[in-house]
Amino acid sequence: MNRSGKPRIVVMGAGFGGLWAARSLAKHPVDCLVVDRNNYHTFLALLYQVAAAELEAEDIAYPVRSIISNFPNIDFALAHARRIDPQNRIIETDGETISYDYLILATGSISHSFGVPGVEAHAYCLKTLEEAVALKNHIICCFEAATWEADEVRRRSLLTFVIVGGGATGVEYAGALSELVHGPLVQDYRTIDFHDVRIILLEASDSLVAGMPAPVRDYTLERLGKMGVEVRLGAKVREVTPAAVLLSGEKEISTRTVVWTAGVKGEPIAGLSGLPTEPNGRVPVLPTLQVTGHPEIYVVGDLASIRENGRVLPMVAQVAIQSAMTAAQNVARQIDGKAPQPFRYRDRGSMIAIGRNTAGVAIGSRTYTGFFAWILWLVIHLFNLIGFRNRIMVLINWAWDYLLYERAVRFVFPSEMPSPAGSQSRSCRLGREIDQQRRYPGEV
Amino acid sequence: MNRSGKPRIVVMGAGFGGLWAARSLAKHPVDCLVVDRNNYHTFLALLYQVAAAELEAEDIAYPVRSIISNFPNIDFALAHARRIDPQNRIIETDGETISYDYLILATGSISHSFGVPGVEAHAYCLKTLEEAVALKNHIICCFEAATWEADEVRRRSLLTFVIVGGGATGVEYAGALSELVHGPLVQDYRTIDFHDVRIILLEASDSLVAGMPAPVRDYTLERLGKMGVEVRLGAKVREVTPAAVLLSGEKEISTRTVVWTAGVKGEPIAGLSGLPTEPNGRVPVLPTLQVTGHPEIYVVGDLASIRENGRVLPMVAQVAIQSAMTAAQNVARQIDGKAPQPFRYRDRGSMIAIGRNTAGVAIGSRTYTGFFAWILWLVIHLFNLIGFRNRIMVLINWAWDYLLYERAVRFVFPSEMPSPAGSQSRSCRLGREIDQQRRYPGEV
Repeated sequence: MNRSGKPRIVVMGAGFGGLWAARSLAKHPVDCLVVDRNNYHTFLALLYQVAAAELEAEDIAYPVRSIISNFPNIDFALAHARRIDPQNRIIETDGETISYDYLILATGSISHSFGVPGVEAHAYCLKTLEEAVALKNHIICCFEAATWEADEVRRRSLLTFVIVGGGATGVEYAGALSELVHGPLVQDYRTIDFHDVRIILLEASDSLVAGMPAPVRDYTLERLGKMGVEVRLGAKVREVTPAAVLLSGEKEISTRTVVWTAGVKGEPIAGLSGLPTEPNGRVPVLPTLQVTGHPEIYVVGDLASIRENGRVLPMVAQVAIQSAMTAAQNVARQIDGKAPQPFRYRDRGSMIAIGRNTAGVAIGSRTYTGFFAWILWLVIHLFNLIGFRNRIMVLINWAWDYLLYERAVRFVFPSEMPSPAGSQSRSCRLGREIDQQRRYPGEV
Repeated sequence: MNRSGKPRIVVMGAGFGGLWAARSLAKHPVDCLVVDRNNYHTFLALLYQVAAAELEAEDIAYPVRSIISNFPNIDFALAHARRIDPQNRIIETDGETISYDYLILATGSISHSFGVPGVEAHAYCLKTLEEAVALKNHIICCFEAATWEADEVRRRSLLTFVIVGGGATGVEYAGALSELVHGPLVQDYRTIDFHDVRIILLEASDSLVAGMPAPVRDYTLERLGKMGVEVRLGAKVREVTPAAVLLSGEKEISTRTVVWTAGVKGEPIAGLSGLPTEPNGRVPVLPTLQVTGHPEIYVVGDLASIRENGRVLPMVAQVAIQSAMTAAQNVARQIDGKAPQPFRYRDRGSMIAIGRNTAGVAIGSRTYTGFFAWILWLVIHLFNLIGFRNRIMVLINWAWDYLLYERAVRFVFPSEMPSPAGSQSRSCRLGREIDQQRRYPGEV
């Protein structure tokens, strides 16, 4: 209890899970504090479009304080949580120490290298806005460097883009990158022979978007091929180096760009705090979404390993939203002295966008592909964006792209941004790192 | 001459000067190369609105390759020039070495500390997009930190914002910051007492916007006062420290935010290359805009010290555009064997925006203030933005701000961006640096 006499509920994370939990708590007599290391919510489903220079980072972000400003009992703290102390019910952060009566953990997931050497040091990931912007900057820099690269082998390496992982993110980014390269960039880089450009999608299993029904899987494979993406199924990555990706079977692809979308794991806070975790960092929860032995701690969204009918629910927005609402209701029930209720997931279907007029949708036992599915995808994603202004901005950028075959935001900005992979400023310095004697075109 | 047999003209800088020079050369039988360290043009006149969370950085930037894509004889190189070798007519960069037959220098100006201690280490500047975004992030972080700061003196220091320099940039930023703070931020930070917030504008001389006519100067002073900005004329800054700004006469203002708009100087490339420069780094030019002793080198815009009727022309966009067009014409005349013509500047007036419905305009001997001047300011700035899309985006953001008293882009993003003042990641780490014991509100 804090000074107001109301129970204090801390929600960690301002993704879909965290925000829906907080909103559901707004109508109850509690004090709620949302904690996140960013002061904005990110709409992750469109992150790949930021990395493809189609949307601005600001278009898919929304200030947390704007979202909660109508709810007097919800506050926000900009802080990076370091560790939870479940015994004393406090959270240690890089700033203040925060105490709680109930805790809803919604910190989501991070990229997972599966121990493949070189991924963390040399690959680009697509899980945060910073990573998406860094990847976009890097792609543009590869083209800038290629215009000056006289050596054919090195030029081809600069123009080879390898995406690892044939799930939704990998497929959507492969499609968006292909449309960026073969549309706007052709106009920008007149001295480059675009036959040298390769976009390669590597998938270790024998199928793309394995969670989708067969018609959507087949459609995805066919459309990506028509868009010039080289799909390689059964391709297992052995190592990533600064200049290549090595496949099992001694094969090697020379490239300066490896985008790692092959896997995710639970955000580490739970494991660091002594809560039980599975090998992939997710926290096993009771049917009520509580942690065993800690009835005051709930876990929702990607971080929660929720079993239903013998299977673990997938890491998707719908699970995060629905589990967050159940967790918030259960906290309210506990405060009222009632028993928490078990969570029931309602699958509303899944969808994937491959390119213009090209998407696949699965709802129940029905599947749709092509233009109608694409319109459905557009409408649902616009609807799920938070904020009317963001919807307008995204709509304008999409219309621009669709009608003019233009991408508006192909800047390298900020020019001194550190690369997510740790190598200082790599995203923009690429052109300067290359040990080449660059010449002005026409120079003999 | 390069392989095409045409003279090669290198334009350094993609600001107004560089772009107008390149465009003017497009119709002549020359090969033109634009060199800039960024791959985009920045509309500097609206930079202060990015720093006030009113516009997105992308709204006032435009890719250079888009601008030149219609001109087959103009190319672009993303490179940071290190030194010019005028004897051998080459430019050393961080990448390739670039040779030229004619050179148009349009690298503009940078902030100038006038040797005041602490400015480079501790003050925020407003000359680049990176600096504007870092300043915006810092302002938001000051408010985030203030919500948790129990010590009253330190909280007031976090909420005191000092702008040094009463020229156009300082005045416009003071007004925009006041509207940001007393509008959207009041809604965001409900636990902050906004009587603690101070915005102080320091000017060493006895007048704001000294270059404007008296009615505009008086209007500016009066309006800023009404908007809650404390204007202090005759205030000379002696030193900037991490926690204060020290004035001559032993006065001191405790603050975590000093915005330095007090002066600019010529970008250093000319001085580093042995070209003659004045103490402020600007290059004195002949009436034809050529450098004495180097008829193949022209200097335009802020970098050029252009004397006309006994006075040096001001560092404004109109001088840059007009001088760039003259320099390009003179290069073309030289190639045709004709004599270069002297530059004549046509002053089209000047304007300043202070806040909503509040601006001052001077055209010839006439002055306008208030709503009409503000509409004129809006129209002319929209018109001068490059790119139809940017105009739409800026218009939407302005309308949003005007109608809803909202600022859409108050994120701290990217969260790991280095501060322009050199102190690593200062812009976002402020809340973590402060040696305080932050507490959850209501904690006893």
